[in-house]
Amino acid sequence: MPNRFLDLKKFWLFLIPALLLAATIGGAHAGELRGTGDLGIIIERAASRIQIIETTTQTKLFTVEGMGDLSHASVVYSRDARYAFVFGRDGGLTKVDILTGTIVKRVVQGGNSIGGAISQDGRLVAVSNYEPGGVKVFSSDTLELVADIPAVYDGDMLSKTVGLVDAPGNRFVFSLYDAGETWIADFSNGDTPKITKFKNIGKLPYDGLITPDARYYIAGLFGEDGLSLLDLWHPEKGMRRILDGYGRGEEPLPVYKMPHLEGWAEASGTLFLPAIGRHEVLVLAMNDWKEIGRIPVHGQPVFAMARPDGRQVWVNFAHPKNDVLQVIDVETRQIVKTMTPGRAILHMEFTPRGEQIWVSVRDRDVVEVYDTATMEKIAELPADKPSGIFLTARANKTGL
Amino acid sequence: MPNRFLDLKKFWLFLIPALLLAATIGGAHAGELRGTGDLGIIIERAASRIQIIETTTQTKLFTVEGMGDLSHASVVYSRDARYAFVFGRDGGLTKVDILTGTIVKRVVQGGNSIGGAISQDGRLVAVSNYEPGGVKVFSSDTLELVADIPAVYDGDMLSKTVGLVDAPGNRFVFSLYDAGETWIADFSNGDTPKITKFKNIGKLPYDGLITPDARYYIAGLFGEDGLSLLDLWHPEKGMRRILDGYGRGEEPLPVYKMPHLEGWAEASGTLFLPAIGRHEVLVLAMNDWKEIGRIPVHGQPVFAMARPDGRQVWVNFAHPKNDVLQVIDVETRQIVKTMTPGRAILHMEFTPRGEQIWVSVRDRDVVEVYDTATMEKIAELPADKPSGIFLTARANKTGL
Repeated sequence: MPNRFLDLKKFWLFLIPALLLAATIGGAHAGELRGTGDLGIIIERAASRIQIIETTTQTKLFTVEGMGDLSHASVVYSRDARYAFVFGRDGGLTKVDILTGTIVKRVVQGGNSIGGAISQDGRLVAVSNYEPGGVKVFSSDTLELVADIPAVYDGDMLSKTVGLVDAPGNRFVFSLYDAGETWIADFSNGDTPKITKFKNIGKLPYDGLITPDARYYIAGLFGEDGLSLLDLWHPEKGMRRILDGYGRGEEPLPVYKMPHLEGWAEASGTLFLPAIGRHEVLVLAMNDWKEIGRIPVHGQPVFAMARPDGRQVWVNFAHPKNDVLQVIDVETRQIVKTMTPGRAILHMEFTPRGEQIWVSVRDRDVVEVYDTATMEKIAELPADKPSGIFLTARANKTGL
Repeated sequence: MPNRFLDLKKFWLFLIPALLLAATIGGAHAGELRGTGDLGIIIERAASRIQIIETTTQTKLFTVEGMGDLSHASVVYSRDARYAFVFGRDGGLTKVDILTGTIVKRVVQGGNSIGGAISQDGRLVAVSNYEPGGVKVFSSDTLELVADIPAVYDGDMLSKTVGLVDAPGNRFVFSLYDAGETWIADFSNGDTPKITKFKNIGKLPYDGLITPDARYYIAGLFGEDGLSLLDLWHPEKGMRRILDGYGRGEEPLPVYKMPHLEGWAEASGTLFLPAIGRHEVLVLAMNDWKEIGRIPVHGQPVFAMARPDGRQVWVNFAHPKNDVLQVIDVETRQIVKTMTPGRAILHMEFTPRGEQIWVSVRDRDVVEVYDTATMEKIAELPADKPSGIFLTARANKTGL
């Protein structure tokens, strides 16, 4: 039956392109259909690369290359937790689709940048720049420039900007390192921000945080021994100094690494914060902003992070004592565990309900995952010189 | 060229099944590839149906039918925020894939149930049952039974269970309505729970909550004028009475609807809670659990919910005054807005960063969405007798 033979041959001729078509239709969903609640990003600092991971079974899903200079990189997420906005040191702002592991768009928006934030409504992404000093604000959808806010002071000087965070009401708050000012840029009435400036807040503000209730902005001062506090419910009252002279009368130690204020920890109405240059974690009462205790620790603390339920604070340290991780019990303020995962512990991130903590151990090229109840290691993932770790739960939070 | 004609005819013969094949392969991803951070569920109580919605542009994505009796239904989410576990009044536990809008599995696990919870690690789903009284615990993956905890008291009596919540350390906490007890079921060592019982906590506990820091469990008492408090950091200390006799010496009003404790609001170190049977919201200091104020409101409050930044508390009311929504300013404790969206306002849910609140208005068959900054309505979605609204941000939270 030659005809039948011909048919079969033709069948394949037609089937192959049809299968390719099928694959194409399937391929429109190159990423797997999955929830984004348990995803996150690990920065591979030296390799200009990020890993996309999931925390349920602790695996890597994708590697994304070509991310520029990722020193001091940080990440925020779109409100649907599908897109990551990665802020690089080279002024790069990269929008990554974490479901497909691909770069959606990348712009180099400044010469030297440090950190960013996403507005409460998810519409705007702001980047804080050292060079030229100021904040640029982009559409989270297209990465097109929406607003440019040069950090002008003393006539025509431009200040480095630091401590950029989002606040309720589509506001961004940031500080001017050189000028000693804090500004609020309010986008609640559209793309032209209303700027409110607070002057003389103290010398050399170097970072800022918003308390977990999103009410207070606190700028850490590098040029003075204290912090500056702004009540965002009452900006008309201006900023006031807190913990003034907390190191007074004591010999300051050389500062090997600036602590990060983003990691300041709130637990049971107290803030746990790394003291600059001292081997101490300070404990601050949030009702009157007074120091109520100091906890001696292994070295100069960099991050002091509270488990989401506020029962533990995990602390890492500056060079040369950066191979140690300590856990403080909040109730007794005692160190209950000291671990030595390896040199250069650069960052930690809790899963949102606190059962795991992910820890970057740069010089061992691994990220370790601990069960926070037992404080035992439960997983280890290879990573090339890992630094920051950022989980999608951040999409739901204010002030990061 | 008859041969060529034949070829064309055959082409279609082969192409049609091939296209069907393509559609099938594509159909493995019937849902659109998308993030799950902005998704949620609206219960359509009378229609045995749920809507899956997204909050970014406020639209409906799917309708899922065949959900059983959804009176008093509630929802928790898997840790990846892809799957919803819907607890129906008929004892139905339904696992729904919110990316495809399909039922993955449905079991009828009890005769009359009220609420559920998911463990910290996401592995276990617990359901609270009136009939037979107790808690059943299922694998979140397969919905297979993992543990059965009958609420036995006085020898062979079975109590209704209420106020079931999850707590850190893979624990579930719940209360026995008839027995006046609170139990902790601790699954931190596997599938056989360690049960801790607290007896004589007060008469007829009717609901429970965990404070946002996940430290305290509070049971509301229907049979007595007060509440019972458990410090989960110190279960060995037992439970103690708080707000004892808060209505003493005053004539109680008839109670038209029990308030919900899940909606108790924490803001600036205070709890705002609906007083049973009274036209008041009580204000409680969390440091010593004493009453520090009462706010007169429109009717008997049902839910008093704090905006995530703690600046506002939104309150709805029991029949016959359930057509009104009031907003309390937390700082001044004054009502700053009274709205009348329509009869039977059954539930409210804030987006995680607080810019929107979604409100069910049952008798108008709509869900309204408000901008919380302006308190103006920004969207309205049709819904058939809507009751509960549950957003995926709950996946990241403890004690819901």
